[in-house]
Parts: sequence; structure tokens; C-alpha cells
Amino acid sequence: MRLGTLKSGGRDGTLVVIHQDGGAYASAANIAPTLQAALDDWARAEPALRTLAAKLDSGEGKLALDPKALHSPLPRAYEWVDGSAFLNHVILVRKARGAEPPETLRTDPLVYQGGSSVLLGPTEDIVRHDPAWGLDFESVVCVILGDTPIGVRAADAGKYVKLVCLANDITLRNLVPTELAKQFGFFNSKPATAFSPFALTPDELGDAWQNGRLNLPLRTTYNGTLVGQPVAGPEMHFSFFELIAHITKTRAFSAGTILGSGTVSNADRSRGISCLAERRMIEIIDGGKAVTPFMSVGDTVEIEMLDSQNRNLFGTIRQRVVAP
Amino acid sequence: MRLGTLKSGGRDGTLVVIHQDGGAYASAANIAPTLQAALDDWARAEPALRTLAAKLDSGEGKLALDPKALHSPLPRAYEWVDGSAFLNHVILVRKARGAEPPETLRTDPLVYQGGSSVLLGPTEDIVRHDPAWGLDFESVVCVILGDTPIGVRAADAGKYVKLVCLANDITLRNLVPTELAKQFGFFNSKPATAFSPFALTPDELGDAWQNGRLNLPLRTTYNGTLVGQPVAGPEMHFSFFELIAHITKTRAFSAGTILGSGTVSNADRSRGISCLAERRMIEIIDGGKAVTPFMSVGDTVEIEMLDSQNRNLFGTIRQRVVAP
Repeated sequence: MRLGTLKSGGRDGTLVVIHQDGGAYASAANIAPTLQAALDDWARAEPALRTLAAKLDSGEGKLALDPKALHSPLPRAYEWVDGSAFLNHVILVRKARGAEPPETLRTDPLVYQGGSSVLLGPTEDIVRHDPAWGLDFESVVCVILGDTPIGVRAADAGKYVKLVCLANDITLRNLVPTELAKQFGFFNSKPATAFSPFALTPDELGDAWQNGRLNLPLRTTYNGTLVGQPVAGPEMHFSFFELIAHITKTRAFSAGTILGSGTVSNADRSRGISCLAERRMIEIIDGGKAVTPFMSVGDTVEIEMLDSQNRNLFGTIRQRVVAP
Repeated sequence: MRLGTLKSGGRDGTLVVIHQDGGAYASAANIAPTLQAALDDWARAEPALRTLAAKLDSGEGKLALDPKALHSPLPRAYEWVDGSAFLNHVILVRKARGAEPPETLRTDPLVYQGGSSVLLGPTEDIVRHDPAWGLDFESVVCVILGDTPIGVRAADAGKYVKLVCLANDITLRNLVPTELAKQFGFFNSKPATAFSPFALTPDELGDAWQNGRLNLPLRTTYNGTLVGQPVAGPEMHFSFFELIAHITKTRAFSAGTILGSGTVSNADRSRGISCLAERRMIEIIDGGKAVTPFMSVGDTVEIEMLDSQNRNLFGTIRQRVVAP
């Protein structure tokens, strides 16, 4: 089942089910007005939504979908937690700012608490307020949790994953070093995050969803050129299930919590990049200095994932950088 | 106007207005079902709530209030951001873990993004899962924002402050050092935060609300003994208005965002403490070692603020530590 949220209908939009071909939808407002409402009452809403989705896929009640009409599946969320589970990314970006990876890199997951009261829709412009801030994209895989208690073991975590989606975890790279030096984590350096048009139940991913990892390439296209297609599965050092065990160590989470993998990154350089910071670091390693600038007004970035039949699973995050 | 949220009625409870004497309420569900709904539509809801509050204060429709029936004003919030604006606290707790205060201590506010999908009610027990984690309280003043755009100047920030309340920003002190060493900020070390029974519009605070600071003592009672009454105003180095300017540097916030002052702390030791970490640091400075343990099962903590007429402004956060 694929779900989406139309912008129309209020702050939290209107819940819709999406046709398998990604080009049509049916309103689910009779089942739950919003995705948050559905997640709040998932045991009741899920079967009804699946029935509606099956009807839609059989051709019943199809309405043509304008991708621009979609907001983030959750236009605002009660919690947005992003990991940094691809160690190649951690090692590269820390090198880029002259920092060592933490000693516990392989044993203790990195996660940060992101802002979640204002999230960007999948085709919403990215406003570049100050070029000196160093605007960068980050292509990320996410899960959306149901109500999740404290103390979940990784082996039991699968049942809390209700949906899977993608994100562009926009980062103001030049604000990171001073902010991390203050030790309170990212704040100004992480403006609003954008999410993919569709959120899918894990069963939609078939064999590609394995033990809390999504084993497909995540494609990033920057200014019309495919710049990255790292595989999101094997090199995710901590699986989503392990990240859930980590975040629930001391507290519980409400339905609608979004949990990200961090920037998807492979050690094999031929897989390309999921953020400009990685390319800049590779340039420093190879040639002594970074030559790729951060994002400029007019730049575009697209993030999507195709399955083995080249089906666009989550729709495409397609954003343009604009002046204020 | 004083607002509160009854636990009954669903995940977000039921909005009520609170009588001036703190002992009675009237349901505001006809105006807005929840505080979040009221904040989402504040221009319409606020005058209607004020009319209802005036009627209640004149004795109309009083229902007796059981403090245990109240949840946090927002049982879950779209954003919980806590500053650390009392420099005496920053200096003491960093000393306590052998760290220097950041170089930009006086010029660049410290804020961290907290978890907000599960918040504790004012009389909810604190579950101590592992004594080794070092359970501590932190007494904090908070504001609740309306929709707040990017780039607010401190001089214009006052209009975004819709409500004021208190918090117990519970901290697992022994998890802090390793977490901060990872540079991604607090996460496991900050379990669910508890909030005061009532949230007040700033006009309720009279002259005590001055330029984004609340100039009254914040009282903390630990195991029946008053251990702290630091004044929350003058030593708040960055006012709430300055904190709003800081957090809006790169992004906007939706209505219902909670913003905290950080632990209220005065340089004058006779004002006492708002967390055990400070007392332990003072013990180290004076006697070479910390003798006060962190919180144990059976401990109680109460946090409240009285005005100049000894009126209990926000009700009392009254929590007990229990075993899992």
C-alpha cells in the first residue's frame, strides 16, 4: 500500500491512497482525515486503507494525480530523528571538517533529533537565505513508526515500522562545525527537511526490505546529472531495527515518528554521492582542495528509488533552489 | 488566561480554561477540542477562550479540578526546543564533567532539540529504569509559540509567545558525557519531559514578564525540602526573545512549539539549585567530591512558581520516582 498527503484540507493535508502506477489516487478522508490520524488509529485504519488501495489498483475511483499537489506524507510530525548509519558518510564528512570519527563509530549509533513542526513537500523550493551557509542536500531512507514503547529489542522492532519513505535532509554545511563544537547537536545547520511523495508499507518493497534495511540503490540527480546511486542496504551499519533499539533505550515514541538512515553512502566510489560534502571531501583527498561549490540559486536536486522493475517506488523528491 | 488539558478525550486530551484560584475549570471543547487545535487557530480561539475564562472567573460553570486529571498542556508537541540560557548552570555542569564552557558562551545561545512525541503530565511518575544512568531533574521556564516564521528579530519576537509554562526537563546525567562526545547532541540522556498543569498567557504574569524574561523565583522542592528558588529573570543571559531570534535563523516553527530557558540557576548560592548536578558540582568545588546521589526510587520533586501575592501561577509539577 502506498499513501500520500494532498496539500489541500488544512495544516496536515488530506490522506490519499496512491495507485500502483503512481499516477492516480483516491481520497482516504472517509477512513482517516490525515496520515497522522491514520497512524494514531492504525489497527483500525490500516485494513480499511488496504481495501481502498486494492479497489484503486483494480481501476475503481481513479483520480489523476498532480505530483505538485502532494505535501510530505506528514506535513508536520511529532518527531523526526535522523541516524547516520552509513559509516562511509560519517568518515568522509568528519574528514572534510578535520574531525575524527567517534571512537564508538561501529558500536553506538549516531542519531540526532531534527525539527519537525515544519516539513517541506517533495516539490517545494529550497530557499537559499545566505550563500555563506553552504547549502547541501542529503539523500536518506526513512521509516515512519507506530506507537513504540521504551526498551524495544532490535529483534522485535520490525512490527513498529508502519511505512517507509525517502527524505532530503537539507543541511547548511558551513554552520555545522561551530554548532557541533557547542556540543548540543545540530540546530541552525538543519533547516526544514523534505520528504518523498509516497510512503509505502514495507510489504510493498518485497525482498528489497530485509532485516530493517532497504536493499536498492537510492538515486540522486543534481542539475540533471545522475550523481549517485549507492545501495541503501548492506552498508547501513546499523539497521532500522537497531536504530529503533537505540532510540527507545530511555523513552517511548508516539505514532508518526519519522526515523532516518542518515545519508546513504557506499565505500565504492563508482556508486557516486548522496550529498555534495562527500564529493568535496573526495576532491580534497584526490587533489588537495574542494572544487565543487555548495548549491546555488537555480540548482535542482531529485531523489528517488527504482525497484528491480524500474518502478519509481516513492515518487520523486524534486526541488529547486531559489532566492528568498 | 490560564489553560490546561484534561487527560480524558484522546491522545491530545481536552482543552480547559482554569479558574484564577487554580481549583476549578470549564471545558473549552466547544471552542477548540485540544490546546494544539486552539494554537493552530489562535486568532479565532484566543478571544473565545478569554470570554470563557472571564465567565469562569466570575463563578459561572465552575467544575472542581482534580490536579491528577491534568496532562501536560500539550500531551505531545510538534517541537520541544530547550535552551541553556542561565550561564551559571552551563559553567557548573560543564565543570562537573571536566569540560570547558564553549567559547561563544555569551554570544551564541545554546539550544537543543528535544523529543516531543511523548511528554509527561505534571503528576506523572518518573520511571527509573537503570540507577546507573544518574536520574536528575531540571527546573525550567518555557514559552509556547504560535506560528513563527524564519528570521524573527528579538525586538519583534514577543508577539509569537502565546503561552508560558514550566517544565521538569528530566536528564539522565551519566549518559550525557558519552553522548555529547559523539557530537550529535543529547538523545538517550533526555527522556520524556514533564510540564506544569497550567499554561498562561503572558499578560497573566503582569510586571513579572519583562522583555522575554520571567522575573520570579522558580521553586524546587526535593523530598519535601525547598532546595532552590533562583530568580528566573535577570540571570537569563539570552531572553526568550533572543532565543526565538536564534532558533528562527534558518527555519520556521509551527504553532505549539515549546521553547525552554534551560535550567534556572543563579550565581548566588543561597538561591539553591534547580538540578542535582549543580549541587554535586558545588560539593566537588567545596569538598573534593560529590556526596549527593542522583534520584532514587521513592524520591519526590515539586516545581512551581509563586507570584508576589503567593499565587501558584502554573500549578505544581509533582512527580515521584518509581521502579519500572
